[in-house]
Amino acid sequence: MEDVRRTIDWVNGAVEIIDQVALPGEYRTLRLTTVDELIDAIRRLAVRGAPALGGAGALGTALAAFAHDDPAAVRGDAERLAAARPTAVNLSWGVSRALARLGDGADAVLAEALALLDEDERLNHEASARAAELILEKCPRRPLRLLTHCNAGRLATVGWGTALGVVWHLQAAGHLEYVLADETRPLLQGARLTAWELAEAGVPYQVLPDAAAAAAMARGMVDCVVVGADRIAVNGDVANKIGTYGLAIAAARHELPFVVVAPSSTVDPDLTSGESIVIEERAPEEIATISGIPVAPPGTNVFNPAFDVTPAELITAVVTEKGPMAP
Amino acid sequence: MEDVRRTIDWVNGAVEIIDQVALPGEYRTLRLTTVDELIDAIRRLAVRGAPALGGAGALGTALAAFAHDDPAAVRGDAERLAAARPTAVNLSWGVSRALARLGDGADAVLAEALALLDEDERLNHEASARAAELILEKCPRRPLRLLTHCNAGRLATVGWGTALGVVWHLQAAGHLEYVLADETRPLLQGARLTAWELAEAGVPYQVLPDAAAAAAMARGMVDCVVVGADRIAVNGDVANKIGTYGLAIAAARHELPFVVVAPSSTVDPDLTSGESIVIEERAPEEIATISGIPVAPPGTNVFNPAFDVTPAELITAVVTEKGPMAP
Repeated sequence: MEDVRRTIDWVNGAVEIIDQVALPGEYRTLRLTTVDELIDAIRRLAVRGAPALGGAGALGTALAAFAHDDPAAVRGDAERLAAARPTAVNLSWGVSRALARLGDGADAVLAEALALLDEDERLNHEASARAAELILEKCPRRPLRLLTHCNAGRLATVGWGTALGVVWHLQAAGHLEYVLADETRPLLQGARLTAWELAEAGVPYQVLPDAAAAAAMARGMVDCVVVGADRIAVNGDVANKIGTYGLAIAAARHELPFVVVAPSSTVDPDLTSGESIVIEERAPEEIATISGIPVAPPGTNVFNPAFDVTPAELITAVVTEKGPMAP
Repeated sequence: MEDVRRTIDWVNGAVEIIDQVALPGEYRTLRLTTVDELIDAIRRLAVRGAPALGGAGALGTALAAFAHDDPAAVRGDAERLAAARPTAVNLSWGVSRALARLGDGADAVLAEALALLDEDERLNHEASARAAELILEKCPRRPLRLLTHCNAGRLATVGWGTALGVVWHLQAAGHLEYVLADETRPLLQGARLTAWELAEAGVPYQVLPDAAAAAAMARGMVDCVVVGADRIAVNGDVANKIGTYGLAIAAARHELPFVVVAPSSTVDPDLTSGESIVIEERAPEEIATISGIPVAPPGTNVFNPAFDVTPAELITAVVTEKGPMAP
């Protein structure tokens, strides 16, 4: 798995990303030469996933550093980039980290961004290895049946993945039976992206409507739920894709371990609990239309939060590269 | 509301239905002159909803009675019709009830079917009135904010509706603030049908992804959850649209009343508990494609149960025209 193309990378003076809007129909890369092109790609979710957004923040800051001689102009670009999406802390973290090297010139900013990319792959590999160990400990059944939500795979990170990183480790160890992938409305990251990654890796999987996850648990089809995270509070509350909270409630009822995997950069040290996390509301068209065709009456109002907050009490463990987090 | 066109009716020697596959884009009726056309309409969900399927079973049996002189041929058609979808008990109940009059001739079969249609509207009106009373008793807030799943409105019944019947009663009494309508994947009966009914009736509403319902509860946006039912066991377990079970688990965590409304014909006297309910599995294309376009990799396996079973312990009350059911 480790020699595959990165989700986001620096290639010949520009940012290249795998276009996640085109998958699974088409695998193609996009070349982004300006911060505005990158911001647009982030808003359209052509690149998404908290760890990948950390890489995007850092590489975009490098783009800005090469584009402007005036440090104020670089900072202006960096600020706009950091605000492109509000919930994932990694985006502004990646920006800040690269921007801290601006005094040493654009090459230093780029070097820091590239170091962050390497680190992301390494830390996700490690975090998911620690999570796989924990799951093997908590779940006696072999081989294991995992359920996941949204996409927390290599496409959500620079490479390797977090929740799906666990899948790759368990598969390599011969301990995996299958993965149930919630389709993850409204943008179907589970059906489009997670299923694509699982198919590429030869892992047996089934896609299910988000609302069928509790029934799958009731039928005894699931041993453990494993998901990524977009922002983690110091007390262990987790913001992640809308639907994560409902899954955690259902997992608790069925006494199934509920494991969150993320690099420690996803933990926001300024956030004491999940209550104050800003939740992005997305466009009504994501719900009211499908492929541009209306599926609800004209003028329908929509409740379309991108994320929800799962309280720490419902989470078996938040696992980073340092191991299970102590709230 | 009571003078609107019925979802299913007998018009000049044939069965006419509101085509629920065409809504909300187009409001049109379909004229079905043979049992096979009706079976096809049932399978495509052009007519759906447990009480409406009771009407379909009875009217289809009348179609068969007029088509064949040979009672064995009528019974053959009736058997195929009763098996068109496996979960809703009302379908075979409607067939049996009309078929019991076959000895008195086709006109008697039709008269029984028409009596069943009248009764369905009356019983749903009564059941939803009883449920509205109960909800006003259990929920102190005024006006009320309800959350519902799938479509349990007039389109799911011959007329009036069950869960949405509660909405019409509360709206008439001035006690309704808004309805949150789960979009209800995969076939979006909430976005397409419930939203259409609410818009027609001038009730304020928002459509949300199924996976956002728990977050709406956590944000304090919901006072009560109200749904219909496809089959009810004697112990009070309820089979209803996939996702109902997860909603009930989330409602229990938030200490919100969870009320099921259905005519008593939905109760299966032969069913001691929900465990033995046959759950229809629907086609993988409902998940793997949208508007005919693949949204998952080729060959993706799918878990696509049409219904789930909510145990009685998670249900505040199952309300029929007789009032809250005593398990």
